[in-house]
Amino acid sequence: MAAIERAADQEENVQGSGAISTIVIIIAMQTEALPLVNTFQLTEDPDSPFPKGVPWVRYHGTYKGLEINIIWPGKDSLLGVDSVGTISASLVTYSSIQALRPDLIINAGTAGGFKAKGASIADVYLASEVAFHDRRIPIPVFDQYGVGARKTFSTPNLVREINLKIGKLSTGDSLDMSPHDEASIMANEAVIKDMEGAAVAYVASLFSVPTIFLKAVTDIIDGDKPTAEEFLENLAAVTAALDQAVSQVVDFFPGRSLSEL
Amino acid sequence: MAAIERAADQEENVQGSGAISTIVIIIAMQTEALPLVNTFQLTEDPDSPFPKGVPWVRYHGTYKGLEINIIWPGKDSLLGVDSVGTISASLVTYSSIQALRPDLIINAGTAGGFKAKGASIADVYLASEVAFHDRRIPIPVFDQYGVGARKTFSTPNLVREINLKIGKLSTGDSLDMSPHDEASIMANEAVIKDMEGAAVAYVASLFSVPTIFLKAVTDIIDGDKPTAEEFLENLAAVTAALDQAVSQVVDFFPGRSLSEL
Repeated sequence: MAAIERAADQEENVQGSGAISTIVIIIAMQTEALPLVNTFQLTEDPDSPFPKGVPWVRYHGTYKGLEINIIWPGKDSLLGVDSVGTISASLVTYSSIQALRPDLIINAGTAGGFKAKGASIADVYLASEVAFHDRRIPIPVFDQYGVGARKTFSTPNLVREINLKIGKLSTGDSLDMSPHDEASIMANEAVIKDMEGAAVAYVASLFSVPTIFLKAVTDIIDGDKPTAEEFLENLAAVTAALDQAVSQVVDFFPGRSLSEL
Repeated sequence: MAAIERAADQEENVQGSGAISTIVIIIAMQTEALPLVNTFQLTEDPDSPFPKGVPWVRYHGTYKGLEINIIWPGKDSLLGVDSVGTISASLVTYSSIQALRPDLIINAGTAGGFKAKGASIADVYLASEVAFHDRRIPIPVFDQYGVGARKTFSTPNLVREINLKIGKLSTGDSLDMSPHDEASIMANEAVIKDMEGAAVAYVASLFSVPTIFLKAVTDIIDGDKPTAEEFLENLAAVTAALDQAVSQVVDFFPGRSLSEL
């Protein structure tokens, strides 16, 4: 599609009347991303839209008429592990919006869940709100900035169509949970806890790009097993549930506008 | 300077032989930034190099033959407070490197200091190393990624010339310090604690841009006063000390190459 047509299309999508065309799916870990790369039959972009120096990877292709981009922040160039957490998530969200001008972002990944609030292993949640739990700034107004609570893009028809649990998501840069984190997570009324969501939401909000958060539960935070162990044990299996949920959501898009979600 | 000449200059600077020309100074708070904007007689860029939607502000001008850019992440558009913390710092560092191709970055700002390690109010530190204290990921190798410890750019001649204290800096998104944060800060052997440094270092390292960290102590972490109160009480006065230190450092640059710092 020509650049001018795409610009006009975006304008329409802000009004919610144009059909959804370009989607960016942000996924922090390669293990979570690869099943979806296969499902949508995407290929790695040899001609990266990102600058030299960053490890970020774009998989893309056309699926049911949609332009799908899976963006994975890649492996840390020094340490070789996935570039998880809020900083890389923020950077790839920013850079993807600038380079690809998506109509919609999906942030998909794994999360911890609270069984006391109904979460079980392999549940997939659609986040209704996101907030941070590790940015405590006890000065008036700065405290709210730190928490950064945001309602997510509302998708009532999608929710009716697909059987997903709905709950609030809390984000922080640690895999474990300190007592201070726990107090903030409770204040955020979160059912699930991840390491990227609220950062993606913050950056997407700067540019008013609607964003959907799909998070599959790999570990029970208020259970008996250590988080890291349970997370690694369930990662591959739970990723299959995440794969299915993201596919169902994307299958709902063709021919629909944002306001029809 | 023409684009091609600038590119050649950058190439030289990587080798350390070209004279320093373009400097980006990243400062999280307007109160910290404005005295330096005056000192260097910079003006706000009416034609921002940053995309529509972001609150980031560029002040720029020529000072003693150097192209100086002060980048302030601006006020949060919803809440009106400075966009402090690692996410905004990462985004402005990334975007400034892409738009301005600096030879050198200075991250200047205020910090908490530990009196047990020799810090006093209004001391200005040059950080020798930076690391995070609120990214706990207890999985082998991911743990090191979370801490993200990095040595900073070495400036032995600058250090000899200017009377600055030297110490390790630890970064986190909270103004206060939880017991978990404290344990990590001690493990990082930090003398000072801020909310941006290690994030700026991470992004600058992706693009191999040398970075200097200048942090002025506004509050004593292991003292009697509550951090937020002491921080606000000292912010304006300590900013004068920061202003002086940044000026002395910048005054050392004209005619020198990176390898002469």
